[in-house]
Amino acid sequence: MVSPAAGGVRFPALETTAAVYLDSAATTQKPQPVIDAVHRYLSRETANAGRGSYAWSTRLAAEIEEIRSRAATFVGAGDPREIVFTAGATAAMNAVALAWGLGNLADGDDILYSPADHASTLAPWRRLQTILAGFGRRIRLVPYAVTALGEADLTDLAERIGPRSRLVVVTHLHHVFGAVTTLAELRPQLPPDVRVVFDCSQSGGHLPVDVRELGADFAIFAAHKMFGTPGTGLLYCAPRVHDQLAAFLPGGGFGADDPDRAPMPQRLEGGTADLPGILALGAALDVLDTLGRDRIAEHNRVLTRLLVDGLRRVRGVEFRPGPAYAPCEIGYGIVSFTLDGIGAADLGFVLAELGFLVRTGVHCVPGGDEESVRVSTHVYTTADDIGRFVAAVATIAQEVQQ
Amino acid sequence: MVSPAAGGVRFPALETTAAVYLDSAATTQKPQPVIDAVHRYLSRETANAGRGSYAWSTRLAAEIEEIRSRAATFVGAGDPREIVFTAGATAAMNAVALAWGLGNLADGDDILYSPADHASTLAPWRRLQTILAGFGRRIRLVPYAVTALGEADLTDLAERIGPRSRLVVVTHLHHVFGAVTTLAELRPQLPPDVRVVFDCSQSGGHLPVDVRELGADFAIFAAHKMFGTPGTGLLYCAPRVHDQLAAFLPGGGFGADDPDRAPMPQRLEGGTADLPGILALGAALDVLDTLGRDRIAEHNRVLTRLLVDGLRRVRGVEFRPGPAYAPCEIGYGIVSFTLDGIGAADLGFVLAELGFLVRTGVHCVPGGDEESVRVSTHVYTTADDIGRFVAAVATIAQEVQQ
Repeated sequence: MVSPAAGGVRFPALETTAAVYLDSAATTQKPQPVIDAVHRYLSRETANAGRGSYAWSTRLAAEIEEIRSRAATFVGAGDPREIVFTAGATAAMNAVALAWGLGNLADGDDILYSPADHASTLAPWRRLQTILAGFGRRIRLVPYAVTALGEADLTDLAERIGPRSRLVVVTHLHHVFGAVTTLAELRPQLPPDVRVVFDCSQSGGHLPVDVRELGADFAIFAAHKMFGTPGTGLLYCAPRVHDQLAAFLPGGGFGADDPDRAPMPQRLEGGTADLPGILALGAALDVLDTLGRDRIAEHNRVLTRLLVDGLRRVRGVEFRPGPAYAPCEIGYGIVSFTLDGIGAADLGFVLAELGFLVRTGVHCVPGGDEESVRVSTHVYTTADDIGRFVAAVATIAQEVQQ
Repeated sequence: MVSPAAGGVRFPALETTAAVYLDSAATTQKPQPVIDAVHRYLSRETANAGRGSYAWSTRLAAEIEEIRSRAATFVGAGDPREIVFTAGATAAMNAVALAWGLGNLADGDDILYSPADHASTLAPWRRLQTILAGFGRRIRLVPYAVTALGEADLTDLAERIGPRSRLVVVTHLHHVFGAVTTLAELRPQLPPDVRVVFDCSQSGGHLPVDVRELGADFAIFAAHKMFGTPGTGLLYCAPRVHDQLAAFLPGGGFGADDPDRAPMPQRLEGGTADLPGILALGAALDVLDTLGRDRIAEHNRVLTRLLVDGLRRVRGVEFRPGPAYAPCEIGYGIVSFTLDGIGAADLGFVLAELGFLVRTGVHCVPGGDEESVRVSTHVYTTADDIGRFVAAVATIAQEVQQ
């Protein structure tokens, strides 16, 4: 069944299967225009985007810069120079750690993070902590709490901000809890030397995101979670931090002799980029704009409520933090839960047998021990898919709880 | 005209153009099986390769590991755990600098490099030098010379090896000079604490490469220069250096709490990889194996000699270092030259107008000031292409030198 929310955009992989794909938070399905953009690059006018003086190469270079401009507009940046192409969201967070953190953190400085967030928001800082410790410089990674709704606990966070706080790592849309954190009231109160990095991996393709509204110094996007392909990410760097940034993974191009002096955004981009990935991202942004992120968000909100309301009626379902606990009808296309009588991994296997593709486990939460089943939707998911999924869980519940 | 060396493998982009692509050292054209592998991933069973308990995801994860094994065999590694997937050759060299260099270089240590090599062999070490200097640790980057043939000058290199030498950076096949350096005689004489990193970006798809025969501690490959796609690289790490390696760009997956203790090769791989890029690499390795790297090398050798012999007869052609100066009939598909009476950039434009796609400039040599035209060939290049190219250069020479 075709979802009306997909607005006529085709997702070929879903057309050749009876399975219901409910793992969009792991990676989204790819729309036809994205597939076409990659195919066009690989089978016509294949070139590198550099100093070739021939049209295949110069046109490609221009197209890459045009996509950078569109990406800037898409995330609310003021200028294309604020947009860095990376090898993915994880590479982008590591870029913040290595290009900013390494040179700007002093002995005794603090970084605030949520231990319930994805490992990629923590691991780059653990690694940086080890690097700095090797040179006798100690930084602290200070955990803050999340609420029952799965949002950052702003009261707790505010209490942990101190004179040595230098960075707050925030997940915009949580990959397990499906809850949104914006820091809306807190941001203006943060001391001016506290930087904020938003991980927008999950929100980028689901919600309107405006990095300036968020007050982000850095913001991170994963192309493959917004209809693009794996291997490409975006890192937004606010102009106010540009003079604090050293080079990240430098190579050919600008200033090999002194990579730290290359202009932005090339200072953070070395070597041949994932050209098909960037072209795919350009096509993906077009699809997202055509469908409209407001309408995508509304579609996922409706599906989330169907899912929550349906699962709530299944005996033994327990929701992980998230919109299930909200006093209002919010929802962002991600719901995680457990079921009495069957472990999450086993439940995932049974669901896969029945044709429902979900993610199970601790979902890359470092040291996480709370396994769950995560359902995540997108424009191609229909109300009928959700209805059948809920019915399947209800049937399994009856069987395992007899 | 179809090149017999292509052995029936189709390169679609070349079928829709009258242009002669002579820029394979920038990026190779993509064979049909590579295009198909990417298309299959994006349009059927699109998934992430992680903890999904459904077949789309588990099959993909198995396929990625199978390609790792094939890549290990392809480069002569002893075990798949010696093969790290990176976002490209530049990322791979930066991985050596950040995962090995940062923790293993002491104040006063030396790194030997060739200033005539590609910027990506130098820039990561310049950046590391700056990082270490910030912590009061000075390392020296010691340049060594190249011969008129474009090879590393082993006499000069040997003289520069001292008690504080820790790393030699070597380009296996030079991207401008088209000359091969193996260190064959020198390698066994190097002190045991001198590591060697080979940049095999140009050789990987052109010659049989055996990392153990090379005596490499590290070896770097660029998928997009060996029929694969941009955004994917390989880093070989010899088992003897594994316990010297810290994490590189860590994220989800193994050990976010202590990324430096993750097993190899995951210690150097964080986040969602360029999955279509790795699948493309798998298909590319198949094509290279089917065609045979010995036969590919012989084809490029023959074309190089045609090119050198033809250009030698054109008045005003001056070769950059390379096989043109060799006393025997060697050649690896890369020839760079200048022409009296016209600058390299202008010559490139005129050649592009005539349908010959070459690279011009200083070719990413840091601080390079010797512009040239670089011609680079591959299996799809024919003797007829070379003949017509030489005739075009001869005609231009006559016009500009009147």
